[in-house]
Amino acid sequence: MALGRPAWAATRAALQALLRRGGDAAGGRPVNGALHDDAALRGAVLHRRAAVRMHLPAAIGDYTDFYSSRAHATNVGTMFRGADAALMPNWLHLPVGYHGRASSVVVSGTPVRRPVGQVSASGTGDPVLKAAALLDFELEAAVFIGGPGNALGEPVSIDEARGAIFGVVLMNDWSARDVQKWEYVPLGPFTAKSFATTISPWVVPLEALDPFAVAAPPQVDPAPLPYLTPKGGTRTVPDVALTVGIKGAGMAAPSTVCESNLRHLYWTFEQQVAHHTVTGCNLRAGDLLATGTISGEGERERGSLLELSWKGTRTVELGGGVSRKFLQDGDEVVLGGWCQGDGYRVGFGECRGTVTPARAV
Amino acid sequence: MALGRPAWAATRAALQALLRRGGDAAGGRPVNGALHDDAALRGAVLHRRAAVRMHLPAAIGDYTDFYSSRAHATNVGTMFRGADAALMPNWLHLPVGYHGRASSVVVSGTPVRRPVGQVSASGTGDPVLKAAALLDFELEAAVFIGGPGNALGEPVSIDEARGAIFGVVLMNDWSARDVQKWEYVPLGPFTAKSFATTISPWVVPLEALDPFAVAAPPQVDPAPLPYLTPKGGTRTVPDVALTVGIKGAGMAAPSTVCESNLRHLYWTFEQQVAHHTVTGCNLRAGDLLATGTISGEGERERGSLLELSWKGTRTVELGGGVSRKFLQDGDEVVLGGWCQGDGYRVGFGECRGTVTPARAV
Ligand SMILES: [Ca+2]
Ligand SMILES: [Ca+2]
Ligand SMILES: [Mg+2]
Ligand SMILES: [Mg+2]
Ligand code: NI
Repeated sequence: MALGRPAWAATRAALQALLRRGGDAAGGRPVNGALHDDAALRGAVLHRRAAVRMHLPAAIGDYTDFYSSRAHATNVGTMFRGADAALMPNWLHLPVGYHGRASSVVVSGTPVRRPVGQVSASGTGDPVLKAAALLDFELEAAVFIGGPGNALGEPVSIDEARGAIFGVVLMNDWSARDVQKWEYVPLGPFTAKSFATTISPWVVPLEALDPFAVAAPPQVDPAPLPYLTPKGGTRTVPDVALTVGIKGAGMAAPSTVCESNLRHLYWTFEQQVAHHTVTGCNLRAGDLLATGTISGEGERERGSLLELSWKGTRTVELGGGVSRKFLQDGDEVVLGGWCQGDGYRVGFGECRGTVTPARAV
Repeated sequence: MALGRPAWAATRAALQALLRRGGDAAGGRPVNGALHDDAALRGAVLHRRAAVRMHLPAAIGDYTDFYSSRAHATNVGTMFRGADAALMPNWLHLPVGYHGRASSVVVSGTPVRRPVGQVSASGTGDPVLKAAALLDFELEAAVFIGGPGNALGEPVSIDEARGAIFGVVLMNDWSARDVQKWEYVPLGPFTAKSFATTISPWVVPLEALDPFAVAAPPQVDPAPLPYLTPKGGTRTVPDVALTVGIKGAGMAAPSTVCESNLRHLYWTFEQQVAHHTVTGCNLRAGDLLATGTISGEGERERGSLLELSWKGTRTVELGGGVSRKFLQDGDEVVLGGWCQGDGYRVGFGECRGTVTPARAV
């Protein structure tokens, strides 16, 4: 991950050459085919996913969470400030983000204990310590930074930003909304999110997403400052279908509650990297930069229960008479992501976690 | 640092036994005295501070910044919201804090480049990219977490918290106020602070501060929740004198602009640890938890230029006709800290940094 793009590309090409049929053309390069053609070797080298234990793909240095879906920011702003003041004045000028907690980023499959935290029903005082009642998921993607990193004080320009990005994972930024509401002014979310963040175990290289690049949502009113504007002006994001399923304790399979897409990102990965480093902050290989909740404009494209239940005012149906406003103990949340090619898919790793009961208070 | 308190105490005792005069009593333990008594050995083992290069005392996993001085929070709140709404409703109920950026924590002596960032003069739009004009220091202390750490989902109780703290350093949380003002709503400070944070290179063990423990400011109206209340109710903080000096480019020595004290912390280290982990967040050896700006009630006890110049409405005199509202290029900021014993001092390491000019925009 720290070696940089030439090493990543060479490694990917070598793996592909081993996995293709010997003699197949692969962009004019010789194809080894050893793993494709030799069943015994393949059996010795490859393992069934169900038979292995996945781990975090990197030692995460710093984890940053952005807030880059316009529909999500608009939904949340509308709920809490009304439609007229939904977006803060800075939102269209810079990719708003904050530092998250790296130690509690866990790999898919890790159980997530419902947090106990400080909550104030009135919002003005008399807090109590209790199990969070408004437990939520956030559908996100995140990039791992790779390469040598930038020196402290030397920003990564938007045109260099792509070279600093190793690849993409799915992320569920578990959030306790009742804790968040009481604590987050003025310095942002803290204990409401730091209890767990789940990511998928394998990283899809940016190169694999190239065929799926689409134009990012236009930024014309206002146009961003030059440091957030790539040469030529073209901003792309990958077209990655994203889903969220909830599988309640008694259910046979997850019920899909959200279908969104990474293409809804208003601020691209490259813009996030350029802004993150503009004042001189150094990025290092293994740093994780998340998109923020990815919602589209449709009601079914909302990437959190906060939005899907509109702050708990609507029920979200799971089928069979089961519904949710927020997560219950035993619920498994399953994120999915894939790029649909012509007759093939680029799949993302699983990102799942089951809510276990809170400790006694 | 990860070995835990018994190892720290044994190491400290062994070092003290080597450094005392042979045969001196030391709590009934035999005293080796090798380094004290043998000048040749001492010369071979000890090095002059000026002849060595200091490094960060640990690989920092996560860095958290609290906001635990009541006078500081009151000053900032008064400036931006008026005296009647100075403290947010949550402030007296929990130690407000946020995640900071670990990658840009640097050791004393590292030059700090004035950041270039996004600023909006109106606060509502038309931002520009420019060198930050309102560059500031923040006088803070910070603890390094030590020991095995808590498991994810298992909080550190307030009565266990002390065992999780290795020791204390000084910290300057450099801040670009103009960048901060535009970016920080609603998710907190981001690029305005992530460009550099300076700490002193050696860590004063908590044990060395024991003789200087004093009662923390009382918390009666409101009393905090039980998870923030130690058994017996006694909350202590170390009495550590703290100073800030500014040495302008043409000055012979730093001029002291602030004299504060760690005893002004409203929320103790132990309360910070208990709150940080209450929802289950795991702490790891090498994590850094900072106090937030430490101001006292006096005008000269204000731990930032924001407060000392009252948002730029007053000048701060450095002597010889030189004054500041915010930091200028070439300014060296020097934090000092010590505990005054009966005929001796426990000194903290230096925490200094010089502002270098911004990159061209
Ligand atoms: Ca999030
Ligand atoms: Ca601070
Ligand atoms: Mg989270
Ligand atoms: Mg800082
Ligand atoms: Ni085949």
